[in-house]
Amino acid sequence: MKIISGGVCAPKGFLAGGIRCGIKASSAKLDLALIYSKTLCNAAAVFTTNRVKAAPVIVSREHLSQGRLHAVIANSGNANACTGETGLNAARKMAELTAAEFGIKAGQVAVASTGVIGVPLPIELIEKNIKNLASSIRDDETGHGAALEAIMTTDTRKKEISVEIEIGGRPVRIGGMTKGSGMMHPNMATMLCFLTTDAAISGDLLKKSLYHAVGRSFNRLTIDGDTSTNDTVIIMASGESGAAVPDGSAEYGLFTEALESVCISLAKGMAADGEGASKLLSVTVTGASDETAAEMLAKSVASSSLVKAAFFGADANWGRILCAMGYAGADFNPEETSVVFSDGSPGGEIKVCEKGESVAFSEEKAKEILSGKEITILINAGKGKGDATVWGCDLTYDYVKINGDYRT
Amino acid sequence: MKIISGGVCAPKGFLAGGIRCGIKASSAKLDLALIYSKTLCNAAAVFTTNRVKAAPVIVSREHLSQGRLHAVIANSGNANACTGETGLNAARKMAELTAAEFGIKAGQVAVASTGVIGVPLPIELIEKNIKNLASSIRDDETGHGAALEAIMTTDTRKKEISVEIEIGGRPVRIGGMTKGSGMMHPNMATMLCFLTTDAAISGDLLKKSLYHAVGRSFNRLTIDGDTSTNDTVIIMASGESGAAVPDGSAEYGLFTEALESVCISLAKGMAADGEGASKLLSVTVTGASDETAAEMLAKSVASSSLVKAAFFGADANWGRILCAMGYAGADFNPEETSVVFSDGSPGGEIKVCEKGESVAFSEEKAKEILSGKEITILINAGKGKGDATVWGCDLTYDYVKINGDYRT
Repeated sequence: MKIISGGVCAPKGFLAGGIRCGIKASSAKLDLALIYSKTLCNAAAVFTTNRVKAAPVIVSREHLSQGRLHAVIANSGNANACTGETGLNAARKMAELTAAEFGIKAGQVAVASTGVIGVPLPIELIEKNIKNLASSIRDDETGHGAALEAIMTTDTRKKEISVEIEIGGRPVRIGGMTKGSGMMHPNMATMLCFLTTDAAISGDLLKKSLYHAVGRSFNRLTIDGDTSTNDTVIIMASGESGAAVPDGSAEYGLFTEALESVCISLAKGMAADGEGASKLLSVTVTGASDETAAEMLAKSVASSSLVKAAFFGADANWGRILCAMGYAGADFNPEETSVVFSDGSPGGEIKVCEKGESVAFSEEKAKEILSGKEITILINAGKGKGDATVWGCDLTYDYVKINGDYRT
Repeated sequence: MKIISGGVCAPKGFLAGGIRCGIKASSAKLDLALIYSKTLCNAAAVFTTNRVKAAPVIVSREHLSQGRLHAVIANSGNANACTGETGLNAARKMAELTAAEFGIKAGQVAVASTGVIGVPLPIELIEKNIKNLASSIRDDETGHGAALEAIMTTDTRKKEISVEIEIGGRPVRIGGMTKGSGMMHPNMATMLCFLTTDAAISGDLLKKSLYHAVGRSFNRLTIDGDTSTNDTVIIMASGESGAAVPDGSAEYGLFTEALESVCISLAKGMAADGEGASKLLSVTVTGASDETAAEMLAKSVASSSLVKAAFFGADANWGRILCAMGYAGADFNPEETSVVFSDGSPGGEIKVCEKGESVAFSEEKAKEILSGKEITILINAGKGKGDATVWGCDLTYDYVKINGDYRT
């Protein structure tokens, strides 16, 4: 697998674009994005589990029920959530406007929104600018770069990736872009992720592959424990590479592995860009009774406000880690648990807990390691062979500032 | 029910005291407390559900298995957690030293600790000072006041209460003290609560009453979502009032109601004194399908970092409230949900959401209400008749400071 340029436009058959239509009233930022495939794609998606679902989530789920998509239209600046029937009509209109431009069906267009909750979406701005949007799409950097910019909210950096693998002697590409710097921020809401590939893969198999990849990536990401009303991950497969990915094949294994890598890269990018975050935290639990237990233990550690605050302060406070494992709801062996901190550099490792008790360690070295930008917490739960990694970030003054002062 | 003075010494038969023995090395603060009953009491307790249990929790649970206690000894400055066999021996020794002073059995003494995790408890300091502690106990303010001071850590205020009710024509008293300003702070760990009463009530019934009261108070308190390794609530009933509280009686109802009030008062005190908190948040959910659902919905709102940060910023961000309800795991009706903010003053109420959508409201008035020190969030979930109140606090810069910079 090699990393290539091109983002969602790297796979054959995809174009993208982004424009400013004025939903973000107070800035000159782009706020309307489109990803379009020249051919009708097999498609799959994962949506928020929140019981309060934004209108675009409801509409996109309907449209995805056939497993086929031609395009995705997305706006930032307004989440179109908690807006009742008006919101549903606006989301449907977004799909219809897009479909009319390209002579496709509205049911072949997915819709996504991110931004303020509870405020009606100014659909007339989208209507007025849909032609500009449709004519803005390109298959190069000016296309996918603009689309990505147009879905960003509190994000401080662009998060996109594209990779190439070889299947049956043919190059197959996967591209992805994402926005999100908290699991959710209702006034500037949501994680959105759009993925493209030119693999020739059925809708059902694409769904299976996507579920696997999301389970190992976005579902192992925690910024603040909140789950948005708008979370959406969509993948479209154009088949343009000509490389077939049949069920149960080695090719499926290769494809899914690559898709998982793409999603993990985007998930880590979101964790590092977590609201106010100064550090990316990777929590790896080994020695758990199984993978599910490992994931529960790692998530509990990565979600603990006390652990997150300690890492902000570069404080080697391993007691908080054991404590968070203790209320994870998963079995482990506290008396056999060990904890190591690592900054990934050669020698940049320090053991702070062994068999559930403190070991003598250099506070100075610990401070040095914990002052890095990317810290791995390696935990052995002393129980079995399950392992999992979860990504998160530290809890900082800036998180409180962003989320406390947002409307003031 | 009337509020009286006296704290844990208000009920007949109890003495308390606190001294400095030197466990808190860097300060002149008291760090060793004792509550003693002249007679052997019926007793009950609730301990942490964390799988990592501190040594004093393990030992106290053993001692409580008979449902009888004469005394509780507690220290601050060291949690005696994650300290293995050494820690268990130290916790047992604390009980034995106390028992020897009063000619009682070690099994009649409960033990509690709060402070740093993973550092051996300097039991020799307690041994050296146990006589001072035993001779310090009084049945007045100098007694219970000192005991309370000696269990405080990051607490910024004293949290104690005592009440009197009448049962069968006799005055019955309940007193309580608590420490804790986060659900847990592993380096300054734990919620501890000691309750006394002179009601004549059996151990089993006391347990039932305590479980009810704790379920309605401390279990509805959230500061940061973390559950300590040391959490302990103990109640001792001396029977000295002569007022019998039999099972199934009206007297039991009166007693339990009073105990619930005492625990709620202490729980609210802890929420208001939450680490770094600038505001007490009460979240009341009505109209849920049942009480359990109401509690789950209210807890999800009170635990959300985004909601907590919004209240710090006095931001009427009701979208975050609906969103947190959406991932609470409890059924409700988003399309029928309403949200009102109140500061408890006459006219100090503002409706911000009705039928799941925004209603026009004065941002100015909302700001004024949300700038108060005690804010109630009134939510109607539009589903049924279940209700519950949960207490929490806002998320502030100071929370991050306390927990990020603690050891630095």
